Amino acid sequence: MTSSLKIFFEPTGVAIIGASDNPDKLSNGILKNLLEYGYQGGVYPVNPKSKEILGKTCYPDISAVPDPLDLAVIILPAQAIPGVLEACGKRGVKSATVISGGFKEIGVEGKALEGQILEIIHKYGMRMIGPNCVGSFNLINGMNTTFIKGKPATGGIGFISQSGAVCGGIVDHVLDNGIGFSHFLSLGNEADVTETDMMEYLAEDDDTSVIAIYAEGIQDGQRFMQTARKVTRRKPVLVLKAGRSDEGARAVSSHTGSLAGSHTAYQAAFQQSGVIEVKNSTDLLNVAMALDWMPLPKGNRAAIVTNAGGPAALASDNLAENGIQLAHFSQTTQDKLREKLNPAAQVANPVDMLGGATEDEYGYALDCVLADENVDMALGVLVPQALVDSVKVAQAMLDAARKSGKPVLVCIMGSVSVRAAQQLLHTNHQPMVDYPELSGVVFSALKQYADYLKSQPEEDMALEIEKDQAKAQNILSGSDLKNWGEHVTRPLLEAYGVSLIQGKLACDFQEALDAAKALGYPVVMKVASQDVLHKSDYGAIAVNIRNEGELENAYNRILENVHEQDATARIDGVLLEKMAAKGQEVIIGMKRDPSFGPLMMFGMGGIFVELFKDVAFGVAPLTQADAQAMLEQTKAVKLLSGWRGGLQYDQDAIIANLLRLSQLAVDFPQIHEIEINPLLVLPKGQGALALDCRMILD
Amino acid sequence: MTSSLKIFFEPTGVAIIGASDNPDKLSNGILKNLLEYGYQGGVYPVNPKSKEILGKTCYPDISAVPDPLDLAVIILPAQAIPGVLEACGKRGVKSATVISGGFKEIGVEGKALEGQILEIIHKYGMRMIGPNCVGSFNLINGMNTTFIKGKPATGGIGFISQSGAVCGGIVDHVLDNGIGFSHFLSLGNEADVTETDMMEYLAEDDDTSVIAIYAEGIQDGQRFMQTARKVTRRKPVLVLKAGRSDEGARAVSSHTGSLAGSHTAYQAAFQQSGVIEVKNSTDLLNVAMALDWMPLPKGNRAAIVTNAGGPAALASDNLAENGIQLAHFSQTTQDKLREKLNPAAQVANPVDMLGGATEDEYGYALDCVLADENVDMALGVLVPQALVDSVKVAQAMLDAARKSGKPVLVCIMGSVSVRAAQQLLHTNHQPMVDYPELSGVVFSALKQYADYLKSQPEEDMALEIEKDQAKAQNILSGSDLKNWGEHVTRPLLEAYGVSLIQGKLACDFQEALDAAKALGYPVVMKVASQDVLHKSDYGAIAVNIRNEGELENAYNRILENVHEQDATARIDGVLLEKMAAKGQEVIIGMKRDPSFGPLMMFGMGGIFVELFKDVAFGVAPLTQADAQAMLEQTKAVKLLSGWRGGLQYDQDAIIANLLRLSQLAVDFPQIHEIEINPLLVLPKGQGALALDCRMILD
Repeated sequence: MTSSLKIFFEPTGVAIIGASDNPDKLSNGILKNLLEYGYQGGVYPVNPKSKEILGKTCYPDISAVPDPLDLAVIILPAQAIPGVLEACGKRGVKSATVISGGFKEIGVEGKALEGQILEIIHKYGMRMIGPNCVGSFNLINGMNTTFIKGKPATGGIGFISQSGAVCGGIVDHVLDNGIGFSHFLSLGNEADVTETDMMEYLAEDDDTSVIAIYAEGIQDGQRFMQTARKVTRRKPVLVLKAGRSDEGARAVSSHTGSLAGSHTAYQAAFQQSGVIEVKNSTDLLNVAMALDWMPLPKGNRAAIVTNAGGPAALASDNLAENGIQLAHFSQTTQDKLREKLNPAAQVANPVDMLGGATEDEYGYALDCVLADENVDMALGVLVPQALVDSVKVAQAMLDAARKSGKPVLVCIMGSVSVRAAQQLLHTNHQPMVDYPELSGVVFSALKQYADYLKSQPEEDMALEIEKDQAKAQNILSGSDLKNWGEHVTRPLLEAYGVSLIQGKLACDFQEALDAAKALGYPVVMKVASQDVLHKSDYGAIAVNIRNEGELENAYNRILENVHEQDATARIDGVLLEKMAAKGQEVIIGMKRDPSFGPLMMFGMGGIFVELFKDVAFGVAPLTQADAQAMLEQTKAVKLLSGWRGGLQYDQDAIIANLLRLSQLAVDFPQIHEIEINPLLVLPKGQGALALDCRMILD
Repeated sequence: MTSSLKIFFEPTGVAIIGASDNPDKLSNGILKNLLEYGYQGGVYPVNPKSKEILGKTCYPDISAVPDPLDLAVIILPAQAIPGVLEACGKRGVKSATVISGGFKEIGVEGKALEGQILEIIHKYGMRMIGPNCVGSFNLINGMNTTFIKGKPATGGIGFISQSGAVCGGIVDHVLDNGIGFSHFLSLGNEADVTETDMMEYLAEDDDTSVIAIYAEGIQDGQRFMQTARKVTRRKPVLVLKAGRSDEGARAVSSHTGSLAGSHTAYQAAFQQSGVIEVKNSTDLLNVAMALDWMPLPKGNRAAIVTNAGGPAALASDNLAENGIQLAHFSQTTQDKLREKLNPAAQVANPVDMLGGATEDEYGYALDCVLADENVDMALGVLVPQALVDSVKVAQAMLDAARKSGKPVLVCIMGSVSVRAAQQLLHTNHQPMVDYPELSGVVFSALKQYADYLKSQPEEDMALEIEKDQAKAQNILSGSDLKNWGEHVTRPLLEAYGVSLIQGKLACDFQEALDAAKALGYPVVMKVASQDVLHKSDYGAIAVNIRNEGELENAYNRILENVHEQDATARIDGVLLEKMAAKGQEVIIGMKRDPSFGPLMMFGMGGIFVELFKDVAFGVAPLTQADAQAMLEQTKAVKLLSGWRGGLQYDQDAIIANLLRLSQLAVDFPQIHEIEINPLLVLPKGQGALALDCRMILD
């Protein structure tokens, strides 16, 4: 691996600039951590006021530090950082971790200072983690530049945090519960190195088998997705994203000083790129542990083996709520269970062996159910009993899990009385949860990842859209409009192959007459005006115009209505369109998200969107599969697929138009919003027609 | 308090029948527990094989035990229980806790045995907890008949469990986390004493301030609701219900051997009776603790005070997801915060005082925000920092909470490094959560209970329905039909005041002609047959019949269609109805639930019910408020209230008809299902008309 980030984790020598001999100072804690966990490279405190700290020679400045030296960890007041980075650059230090805060997160002044240090970094071709971070800990070689106390177990989880506090809090939580990490690191303001860089790095790292991320905002959403799409094919990526709600997003943006995109966009991006999203810290840790230590399931059918019905019932609910089914055992399995278990035991799923069940019964029952081809995974639950040795039961469950090759999760209820059993499981990398109600999310994440790996990698993004990009470019540069109404948006859509209802712009009544004749009655008439975006609110649409008389009436009425509402509205004329055939109306559109760029939407329109919020989103560029998935995510799409004996409608045409709009949005970043509403979907094989559209440019 | 259950918790003397001197036996554990926690009454082991156990004289049988004696705890093989209970009855022992299993839960044989012991209990006027239970623990006086090891802290939570295992598991979890209990008890098979009895008892118990229940199935749902309605006005009742999903319900029913009702019914019942439902054990404990130790909030606006942005963002998301808003501080509050906090601190909500925040800053900031009238409650978050004393911060948060009188929840992240701080909070009854993401459920439950207490107690159940019960009784007893079609159900609905579309049954074509003339064209014609319940599937409905010619065609076609589908269908004739005016179609109905009885439903019909599952439920007898709440629970009901400038429809008429159906269901338990589908709702003030209906009797 030749990533420029490698130096952060495997430096040959590290300087701690601002190291202090005062044990109350964070910089002292960092030095201590660097010395304590087995890091083998050189460690050089830098501070003009000391000769020696914690037994290490202290150097007056970075230029005095001996070779080899490739990482500087800096903890000094913000104002001093630019000078120190300059000195590092001159000294040839290739990487720096800036712990100190006082930058972007404190406002305008800090932002300027952050810009300044970034320039220095770029000038010297350096890489930087931070500023305003807690540093990083490579648990494999003991390279620890954080001031966090304690070392969790070593394992395969690489944890990337955009919050130092969450990083520290989580480390403290896992110190005594066996969950194992390869790296943990906090990225602070991400002035240079971002979460995407780190994900890319950890993807290449052989010690890391799962990447777990706590994220507040992703800076370059498109790059994140492109990278994640590749990484998730090699190892699972798990994200806990803060700012899911409006309130949370406000909290995040006041905290990080940057504008987070909508969570809708995050969700779509995660889904499209195979990233698994969790909702809280507990699930983040449990799922990461399971992905690190457990095989993936072949299906979604779980067996429960327990010595008590209550916890099994709670587990069953939680499994169902997370889309995991209770397996139906074969008759053979049930017969085998019946053979050796307590005669009063329940041998259907959940297998309830009753309170007295011993380690032998646990082992036997788990072997039986795991051997059943109807079982894809198992949960073993033990409620401690006075006469049952919980350590032996833990060992039996562990043995059964190892033999089977199927994922087995263990829940040993209680805490105080079962510490030894839990310890045995931790040591042997057997995933466990504290309560049966925590099992569903874990199994469901395993299943989600297994399904993802089975899915075809998304085809290349270069979609075969028949487009005339030059023509579209001309249309867009030919106008300085911000709000584009239907009559001006139509040609742009046409250039990208969208089928529009046949229509003509008419600048006066005579042209309208001619247009209607050419189109053939009945026709629809709408005002063409950049000042009238919501035409029906203005009474500026007339439908089912059957003859010249009606056309004249409609023409006059529309112009009067618009004039009455807004005497200054600029009117380009009226748009004449053929009356559409019968079909189902849907909405497709795009709105640009600050983090991910073009966010596509699909919904059935009307009450389905407005009352039921039955809408699906996807980040462009969409693949065919993405567009298909968007349709499937709405409930109302069933109305297009022969609902209760009705017609089949042309869903392929919706997908094709979503892809056209996606391509248009990718090719022209100046398009801020574009919408076809409604898109009239005709019966299967007959296509779809845009009946109205509008656009907003940046 | 003179409840017959008092003896279980404050007996003057207790016999342990089946006590053993073998420390590996559960009965030995029970005796040990009875002696260990300060219980002051007499303790009498009974076992013919021993003279003395654990230093107590052992008696050969119950008749030999000295007075006073009012409780027998029995742990013997199931077959021996009837004889022992007989002896207890004869000895005048008024209550028994039967720990042993081997009854209803093991099948038919056990069920018979359980019936037998219940007869004995009744014969002697005794009360019994169990069989198949873990017993009970009164933490106030130390009366402990369980074999569970350890004693949680003493506090106001009375915990009732239908699973001994869940009881034991939870006790083990709380042993070292400070949550305090007045009682905990497992009820086992509930042959005599049920969860409702216990709820009633704990409602009267002065040491109990919160009743927390783990339930698998409630036997007499109607009695539970009536009792809960009263209890919840005095103290909060909290339920964790297993069997919410189909899978969970299956697990529960295979475990308890009894048929649980649908979770839909449970949810409706809990809501109607002010019971707070939680979804997992962690929430059960956290919410119970909060209700025990915290005041109730006046509104739903929360402040967050933190030393780290990440956890605050996670908390904000969780609050929003649970319906709690982030408070907007007054300018004064923000100015006051600005005055003393770090200049880089964030003084809007969440208040982020940054990593170095001290106990003084915590105290000051919490005082400021809690004094703000825009704040109803606060969450204090501490991420441990090297230079911050977490115990002092905990003390500062505790002081601020006590001064304010508003609910304050504390989250101290981490575990190992902050034990002392957590201990301080526990000891002082300051509620805390382990992760910020656990705060939303707690605040939301407090708010829910506060709102409930503010609501008007439900009016008396005797609703003023204009009904002719005798006529309905005649109709029902006049037929032995099981499936009642429209033409036979109509008169029953009429007797309870439901407005039906005008209609007449015609037995032949001539009668049909006369009926149509009397009703006035256009009319609708439907087959009247007990064998055709889904008339449109049979082609047995004709609408908009405008004249005699069309009537004849329709008549012949309907009879032919039915004959073709089912040549043996018994046909009573055809039902002629007036064509209905325009309106909105809804469904109202009732289906009897095994636990709660008549479960009413309301939905907008068609795709709203079938595609969006947009349906609401309530247990009859419904109050006006219940019916109103059912309407409000559906999204689609907005279509009746002037949606996008449309008409207002007669929602009062829907409510009136729900109440009529509710009364009918209460008066006639033999009605298993009844449905009006559609009920045509006319514009406001014009009522509603049943256009079709059907019924199933038991």
